[in-house]
Amino acid sequence: MSLVCFPFKEEDVTVVVRNIECAASHPRVAAILCVGYSQGETWHAIENAKARIERATGKEIFLVLQRRIGVTLRGGKGDGMNTALSFFLEKDFPRIHFYDADIVSFSGEWISKAEKQADLDYDVVRHYFPRSSTDAMITWLVTKLGFAMLWPNSTLPFIEQPLGGELLLTRRAAEVLYGDQRVRSQSDWGIDTLYTFVSAQAGLRLAEVYIPEGKVHALYGGLRDLRTMLVECFSAVQSLKKETLPSEDAGGHCIEPARPVPDLIKQKVGYDIEKTLKLIKSNWTPRQQELLHQHFDSALVKGLLNAVEWPCWSFADEDAWTSAYLKFLDHFEKGDDDWEELLFKVWVARVLNHTFKNVMRGYDVALGALRDLVWDTRHQFSLQLKTNPITKHAIVSGHSPAEGLVTRGKSFRKKPKFEIENMCTVQQ
Amino acid sequence: MSLVCFPFKEEDVTVVVRNIECAASHPRVAAILCVGYSQGETWHAIENAKARIERATGKEIFLVLQRRIGVTLRGGKGDGMNTALSFFLEKDFPRIHFYDADIVSFSGEWISKAEKQADLDYDVVRHYFPRSSTDAMITWLVTKLGFAMLWPNSTLPFIEQPLGGELLLTRRAAEVLYGDQRVRSQSDWGIDTLYTFVSAQAGLRLAEVYIPEGKVHALYGGLRDLRTMLVECFSAVQSLKKETLPSEDAGGHCIEPARPVPDLIKQKVGYDIEKTLKLIKSNWTPRQQELLHQHFDSALVKGLLNAVEWPCWSFADEDAWTSAYLKFLDHFEKGDDDWEELLFKVWVARVLNHTFKNVMRGYDVALGALRDLVWDTRHQFSLQLKTNPITKHAIVSGHSPAEGLVTRGKSFRKKPKFEIENMCTVQQ
Amino acid sequence: MSLVCFPFKEEDVTVVVRNIECAASHPRVAAILCVGYSQGETWHAIENAKARIERATGKEIFLVLQRRIGVTLRGGKGDGMNTALSFFLEKDFPRIHFYDADIVSFSGEWISKAEKQADLDYDVVRHYFPRSSTDAMITWLVTKLGFAMLWPNSTLPFIEQPLGGELLLTRRAAEVLYGDQRVRSQSDWGIDTLYTFVSAQAGLRLAEVYIPEGKVHALYGGLRDLRTMLVECFSAVQSLKKETLPSEDAGGHCIEPARPVPDLIKQKVGYDIEKTLKLIKSNWTPRQQELLHQHFDSALVKGLLNAVEWPCWSFADEDAWTSAYLKFLDHFEKGDDDWEELLFKVWVARVLNHTFKNVMRGYDVALGALRDLVWDTRHQFSLQLKTNPITKHAIVSGHSPAEGLVTRGKSFRKKPKFEIENMCTVQQ
Amino acid sequence: MSLVCFPFKEEDVTVVVRNIECAASHPRVAAILCVGYSQGETWHAIENAKARIERATGKEIFLVLQRRIGVTLRGGKGDGMNTALSFFLEKDFPRIHFYDADIVSFSGEWISKAEKQADLDYDVVRHYFPRSSTDAMITWLVTKLGFAMLWPNSTLPFIEQPLGGELLLTRRAAEVLYGDQRVRSQSDWGIDTLYTFVSAQAGLRLAEVYIPEGKVHALYGGLRDLRTMLVECFSAVQSLKKETLPSEDAGGHCIEPARPVPDLIKQKVGYDIEKTLKLIKSNWTPRQQELLHQHFDSALVKGLLNAVEWPCWSFADEDAWTSAYLKFLDHFEKGDDDWEELLFKVWVARVLNHTFKNVMRGYDVALGALRDLVWDTRHQFSLQLKTNPITKHAIVSGHSPAEGLVTRGKSFRKKPKFEIENMCTVQQ
Repeated sequence: MSLVCFPFKEEDVTVVVRNIECAASHPRVAAILCVGYSQGETWHAIENAKARIERATGKEIFLVLQRRIGVTLRGGKGDGMNTALSFFLEKDFPRIHFYDADIVSFSGEWISKAEKQADLDYDVVRHYFPRSSTDAMITWLVTKLGFAMLWPNSTLPFIEQPLGGELLLTRRAAEVLYGDQRVRSQSDWGIDTLYTFVSAQAGLRLAEVYIPEGKVHALYGGLRDLRTMLVECFSAVQSLKKETLPSEDAGGHCIEPARPVPDLIKQKVGYDIEKTLKLIKSNWTPRQQELLHQHFDSALVKGLLNAVEWPCWSFADEDAWTSAYLKFLDHFEKGDDDWEELLFKVWVARVLNHTFKNVMRGYDVALGALRDLVWDTRHQFSLQLKTNPITKHAIVSGHSPAEGLVTRGKSFRKKPKFEIENMCTVQQ
Repeated sequence: MSLVCFPFKEEDVTVVVRNIECAASHPRVAAILCVGYSQGETWHAIENAKARIERATGKEIFLVLQRRIGVTLRGGKGDGMNTALSFFLEKDFPRIHFYDADIVSFSGEWISKAEKQADLDYDVVRHYFPRSSTDAMITWLVTKLGFAMLWPNSTLPFIEQPLGGELLLTRRAAEVLYGDQRVRSQSDWGIDTLYTFVSAQAGLRLAEVYIPEGKVHALYGGLRDLRTMLVECFSAVQSLKKETLPSEDAGGHCIEPARPVPDLIKQKVGYDIEKTLKLIKSNWTPRQQELLHQHFDSALVKGLLNAVEWPCWSFADEDAWTSAYLKFLDHFEKGDDDWEELLFKVWVARVLNHTFKNVMRGYDVALGALRDLVWDTRHQFSLQLKTNPITKHAIVSGHSPAEGLVTRGKSFRKKPKFEIENMCTVQQ
Repeated sequence: MSLVCFPFKEEDVTVVVRNIECAASHPRVAAILCVGYSQGETWHAIENAKARIERATGKEIFLVLQRRIGVTLRGGKGDGMNTALSFFLEKDFPRIHFYDADIVSFSGEWISKAEKQADLDYDVVRHYFPRSSTDAMITWLVTKLGFAMLWPNSTLPFIEQPLGGELLLTRRAAEVLYGDQRVRSQSDWGIDTLYTFVSAQAGLRLAEVYIPEGKVHALYGGLRDLRTMLVECFSAVQSLKKETLPSEDAGGHCIEPARPVPDLIKQKVGYDIEKTLKLIKSNWTPRQQELLHQHFDSALVKGLLNAVEWPCWSFADEDAWTSAYLKFLDHFEKGDDDWEELLFKVWVARVLNHTFKNVMRGYDVALGALRDLVWDTRHQFSLQLKTNPITKHAIVSGHSPAEGLVTRGKSFRKKPKFEIENMCTVQQ
Repeated sequence: MSLVCFPFKEEDVTVVVRNIECAASHPRVAAILCVGYSQGETWHAIENAKARIERATGKEIFLVLQRRIGVTLRGGKGDGMNTALSFFLEKDFPRIHFYDADIVSFSGEWISKAEKQADLDYDVVRHYFPRSSTDAMITWLVTKLGFAMLWPNSTLPFIEQPLGGELLLTRRAAEVLYGDQRVRSQSDWGIDTLYTFVSAQAGLRLAEVYIPEGKVHALYGGLRDLRTMLVECFSAVQSLKKETLPSEDAGGHCIEPARPVPDLIKQKVGYDIEKTLKLIKSNWTPRQQELLHQHFDSALVKGLLNAVEWPCWSFADEDAWTSAYLKFLDHFEKGDDDWEELLFKVWVARVLNHTFKNVMRGYDVALGALRDLVWDTRHQFSLQLKTNPITKHAIVSGHSPAEGLVTRGKSFRKKPKFEIENMCTVQQ
């Protein structure tokens, strides 16, 4: 019998309470844990509903405030999830589930699906969802791409939604995670990256289950709202860049086949384009320009500076982003506002490029382009790793090999008749 | 046995010659007429291939230069088509077909389909095609919309592709058209509008046949290339604004059902967005601003002037365009560069709005929005016509009624629960 | 302010009452008329809810029993609708709406859409719906196809859903219909055919509005349930076969563009195939075999008799059905059980053929095949009519021309390279 | 530089020669190996083209006759492929590719895609293809399902197309396979099953690459043509049923993401339904009935015997097939014509059930049902394996546990609200 945890801040109270009731009624669930960011309106609403739901379902509901477990980073979602892990490890439930508290489409089926896979001895079960083609831009461009560059031979780039907050952990998985200092100190949005990475590094077995109706919840307005999340997620990847994975394949990884994406999700546009266009021209400082000139390719520099005058995005193609990503891995400094703003701007340009070049051509083209980006990048860096076996890493600090690689890589997305011809010399 | 006419300028010579051969081989075709804009490379290529094709097919090929039939307007496609009509009327073929010379996907099936409908005594048979959701922006926003405003009770707004250059005319239709002074003088891009309108006004029977593979031909780069066409097509509608249609329904109108649109067409983006964004901020003159302030709604003025500084398009929604269209109908002056540029800019803003608001959400949403625009506008102006029976016209010059209508119309796209409630007072 | 009529038998009471309330709340509705087939449970449920709804909405609800208006035919839906017309004509509401009482997806929007078109002076407004590819087999194969054969030059074959029971009639239309003896005597399922035909013959103006969510209501199990409906709908067409339409185009006909069909409707299978297979082998009599041999093509006879031993359907292709349809038009006798059973069996074979040949290949292919059948048939019989102008009818009783036509028509669905070649001799 | 092998019998000569040329021109290819089943027309055509292609491409073409390597089983495709392995192992090419000789859509891109993955040190690279929803019925119902039952915790059930004949093997993989006695003796259609299974058992790393245009080649007419293939593929699985896989996860398994399936493939129907219906009623013997009664569930027996009189298929649902599959695993005797015919008939009934229940509802529904079958079965047998750890096998000979499982499993496809409720007692 499992514990179900809902981390919450201030959410739609009706939705939260309904979700708690729904989870508590599930036959596999023994108790509910609500972890609050603060004691606001939502907290009190849960407090009021607590006794009634407990009576109706016969399950205990724990309501706790998140503790400050991390020290150096912003106290956020990481502290909340880690507080839940700590609570869970003191009790004796065999499994814990996490679900965002504000999900309108949540149902008992989500719990059932995860439990069924856990019954097959998977340590971690993650939910994944159909998503709009303009959604998940941090997942695709930062986390999955970063995984493909840094650990191309692992299963990490193939995890469907590595930043998803809906997942099940067994006691064993919870012990691994909470026992890891890196996890406990990741108190911000980077927590999902850490859970995913550390699970893989520890060789935990992962299953992913598909929720065909999608995750319907409160949306962000423009991309501006995602700046903090972007910075913290990228920084989490960066913090791990020297890590290696013990074996090539981190235990079992099993993915439930997806279903056709519902039309409503296909038709959704994830952010306000008009608003987003303005983000590139604002908040420039002389030092940002300096950093830009100092570290990045001239085409990117030129494109970004042009975009200050009038929006453009052609320059921010897949290769430009991959190349810039490597520079950020080397030089980005979290907490330095100019670095953060630069990362944000280049990412915004990349999202616009994706939107105008791929999304405009329809959902299938757009998703195909995102999957190709990860697939091709993983191939490119895996090859690089082979020729660089000493480093045990696809990416070595410093300029030459990575840069050379990306430059050579330029061609691989152009699909020439025999695109591997030039590589033959390397091969033989 | 029919005459098939290919008007041409400078085209891909291989394609043109192949198309001539293909048409000449068709059992229903008696002869080919090639009407050249000038005696360039394409002309000479046809001249060279002429004898061989005539031998192979036993059909005569006529190669003639287009005459200057119009007087006041630019000599263009209109002179070419009218030259063909004149030629045809001097011969005794019962039917004439027109096909653009540069169509890569042209086949004998196109001829067969048109002939089969003409066998049912339709006077005019038009081909129509699946089209990309960013394509046909003059057709939708200028011609079909203008038809819906000016002649909402006629069949004109329901003609699928009123600017299409692929069509069959019987001798009777050719006589009606060539016999009409308005047609003969329309020597520019407005010719298609005139053919379509005059046919309807004369009560000619129209069939439309569907070509599922689409019309694949040379494409324009950015919207800039369409400026002349936009101006001439709008001006053609404007020139007709005082015309009435004798009866409500202009004879028979029969449309072959369409098929699912091929993926390649669904995925096509018709123009370069980055290039097009720039069009709104260029070529401004003080007089354009003056005209803008003098004639247009303040929201449009504000939006357009803002877009000079940094691109925006929210203001250019369906209602803003419909409202501006009425002003252009009243005040636009062809040949006045400031008026032409203003029309172009407002249209570009409307196209961008459509692209970002509708196309981004997928092909079906985008096409649905275009069809709704025509359908709703036709409803609105038909209602208006009912309450204004004396004018016999939905649109009366001057400000009050049209403006009032559009203002009231604002609500009809919002879909309130009972959107017709307020109109009840009108009804009773 | 309109009257809304719900004809009912025994239905899901909750749905009926909800629909009455919904309609009564609509600002365009002045009163509700419920016409009962009998005074059963549903009748009493309405009676009980009546006062409450009247109070809540301020609209009067009339509950009446259907009268026996027809004389010779089975008293069914026709009497019900005609009772409503008669009631309506004695009151002074300007318009009447009909809606099946059991529609789960009914909403006020249905009323609004019809009213909006009626505001444009259409006499009849019909609702049409996305439908499954195995649904509407009487509509496609009997009514639309019959219209295409008998009145190919009219608008009748292009009416989307000529048997639909959701429609609006103005007072003028109601007078035309109720004033027509043929209508009043059509007391059975044939009533929809008569309303549609007589409206067209009288030159009433028709608009069709699209309901994108579809018509969700109680379903039939196997095709057996449709036998009576088939017989009565075919017989209604047959009863009209000598009628002519005054002019080619019966006034205006305007169709709201459709939207993409929802996945749930695309995925629905309309009937139980296993059950249906058995229908062909049951209920044979010696006289049925005799009639078969006497009147029908030998291929059809052979196929149908084979199917008694073991199911087969290849023989029941489009041409076989069209050909058999002509024989039924000539010889079918309603009330003669052997004729009725024969019609039913041939139709079942045709439905199976459609299912296995077209539906299996996906929704778009299946719908395309149905539309092509109507489109091609209309072309074929329109051509025939041209060469037979004296009869004023595409179909003449007796064998030669119609049969010749169908035989020649065989080729037109095969799409040879130049399929019209052979017809040229006819043309010239 | 790789060797490319085309096994052939009698094929379309033009296609074969074109494919040889195409492969020989590829920069990664060093030589071509054509392995003939016999020295017929195709053999001689290759012989004739050999010198010319060698000159044109500078690559050597080997033309050899397949040897009899297996002893007990029919000499077929297995001998052909093993002959190629043996040839390859005597030379020193590092990799060998296999492609069916008759593939119309073959291109150099197929070679490039495989090579690129092999560059990442995969031992085996398999091509996979979009397929029609009535295609691949042996793959889904026999091979993938059997893998899911016998080795549910392995990667085997997730191999996209385990019977595909297009694949690349490294020298290491070829040594493993050819060194295995079970492989060498599998001279018939079972060879693909053996290659796939033995590769997994040996822990070879597998990549699958996606060919979006599909594999277009000569098609079978009715299911009858597939009988031998069915028997040999099932028998191959059966022969392995006592085998275990060393670790749960057989090395790395990486699958290139698929693309939307082309419409033409979605619309294809893989077999002739009318012809196939007859297969169930033919070739019955008294002993077949006896075996049926002796070994199978009464519902299946009843259904199958009913189907002799008149076609029915409802009985052959997913659970009935899974249950029968277990019986066949226990009792089926290859070479015994009654057993073979029984297997064939039950499989035909299952294919018909799939066709009428799932395919009729559209491509996505049909593919979803096939994937669910494998996914759910794998879950069911994996659970069973957990509770039966001593056997190291999900399926134990004898009746009780497997049968109990399937019976209990009945519920898991019905999706009750909390479908795992009953399993809770098992869990705790």
